[in-house]
Amino acid sequence: MTGKFITIEGSEGVGKSSNIAFINDYLAKAGKNILLTREPGGTELGERLREILLDAKNKSISDDTELLLMFAARAQHLDEVIKPALAKGTWVICDRFTDATYAYQGGGRGLPNERIAQLESWVQGDLQPDYTFLLDMPVDAGLERAGKRSEPDRFEQEKMGFFNRVRETYLARAKQYNKRFRVIDAAPALDVVQKQIASELESILEGINISGSQF
Amino acid sequence: MTGKFITIEGSEGVGKSSNIAFINDYLAKAGKNILLTREPGGTELGERLREILLDAKNKSISDDTELLLMFAARAQHLDEVIKPALAKGTWVICDRFTDATYAYQGGGRGLPNERIAQLESWVQGDLQPDYTFLLDMPVDAGLERAGKRSEPDRFEQEKMGFFNRVRETYLARAKQYNKRFRVIDAAPALDVVQKQIASELESILEGINISGSQF
Repeated sequence: MTGKFITIEGSEGVGKSSNIAFINDYLAKAGKNILLTREPGGTELGERLREILLDAKNKSISDDTELLLMFAARAQHLDEVIKPALAKGTWVICDRFTDATYAYQGGGRGLPNERIAQLESWVQGDLQPDYTFLLDMPVDAGLERAGKRSEPDRFEQEKMGFFNRVRETYLARAKQYNKRFRVIDAAPALDVVQKQIASELESILEGINISGSQF
Repeated sequence: MTGKFITIEGSEGVGKSSNIAFINDYLAKAGKNILLTREPGGTELGERLREILLDAKNKSISDDTELLLMFAARAQHLDEVIKPALAKGTWVICDRFTDATYAYQGGGRGLPNERIAQLESWVQGDLQPDYTFLLDMPVDAGLERAGKRSEPDRFEQEKMGFFNRVRETYLARAKQYNKRFRVIDAAPALDVVQKQIASELESILEGINISGSQF
């Protein structure tokens, strides 16, 4: 049977890295083969494009170009990494995917949803994540956490209004696609956040076992 | 009044470089401000993408990714270079444009026309070249000329069948879009080829003057 495709989404400072490590450990203990990857990036070509995209000096890059580069990296990532892994039964945990494009380029920068949807459909066809964990918390608290980091990149230089739109877009998508989304309150202490995640993972694993498709 | 957008198309060895220089000189003598540019490339970002695309080592790049990168470079080229120049009244002479994508990625590699058309429409809207010079000659003669060059790049490594499909696609498009296309027989000696080009340029300039829109 094919693996499951899990994406982790959220704005700056919500604790994606720690919680991705937690999800990885949890599923590994449950006996799953796991591949950890990230967007934009995940392939040699993708990392080259990621450099271009995150390079704070590339201020002149047009919105259309940015969107096409995002989806170019994604197409390569899907063909080279994600689809082959899923086909082998590996569970793929991906740090951001297309929901992030809707949140950052759509909600944040104001690119029309319809134009993002056209490229999503062009690149992915019907492929969507099986489960998406949205780590959610108020924007000011997240930015305060993120502020402890070093050198801010191009996206981190953006302002509060931008991140509020990002958060709203994520939450709206979680409502619209509530079958695959799991919204996690990322504001409390890490152990409290991880209890929520563990509970969701448990119910996902149970659901798969009950459906009997695994055995 | 806005400038004219002229694209130069053709397969390997048809003499694009010499004839682009000729067109440039001809129009400069006719008093036009001219910008020479090329695809993929034409911007700093585009040149970085061009390196990725032409790099003979990037054999693992997927067809979808290649197409998205082509159009990402094109979107940047249009926004940063071509549209601003045309708006200032400059004539833009571009070494290859979207017809090359249909010829190489469509005809050559077999990507469906419909998928190219979706990205063309996404990036260009209604924008098309005003005039397209197609330098046409039999594939074997062209490859023989091209063979005199140094280090063959990724595309030049491809085989005869590929270039035959490229040529057929170019010719089919010239027929379909016969208002903007000027098909030039590139097989004879350079001075004979350039007489054909000069004659077409003369009629283009006359047509513009007669239409009275320039004065």
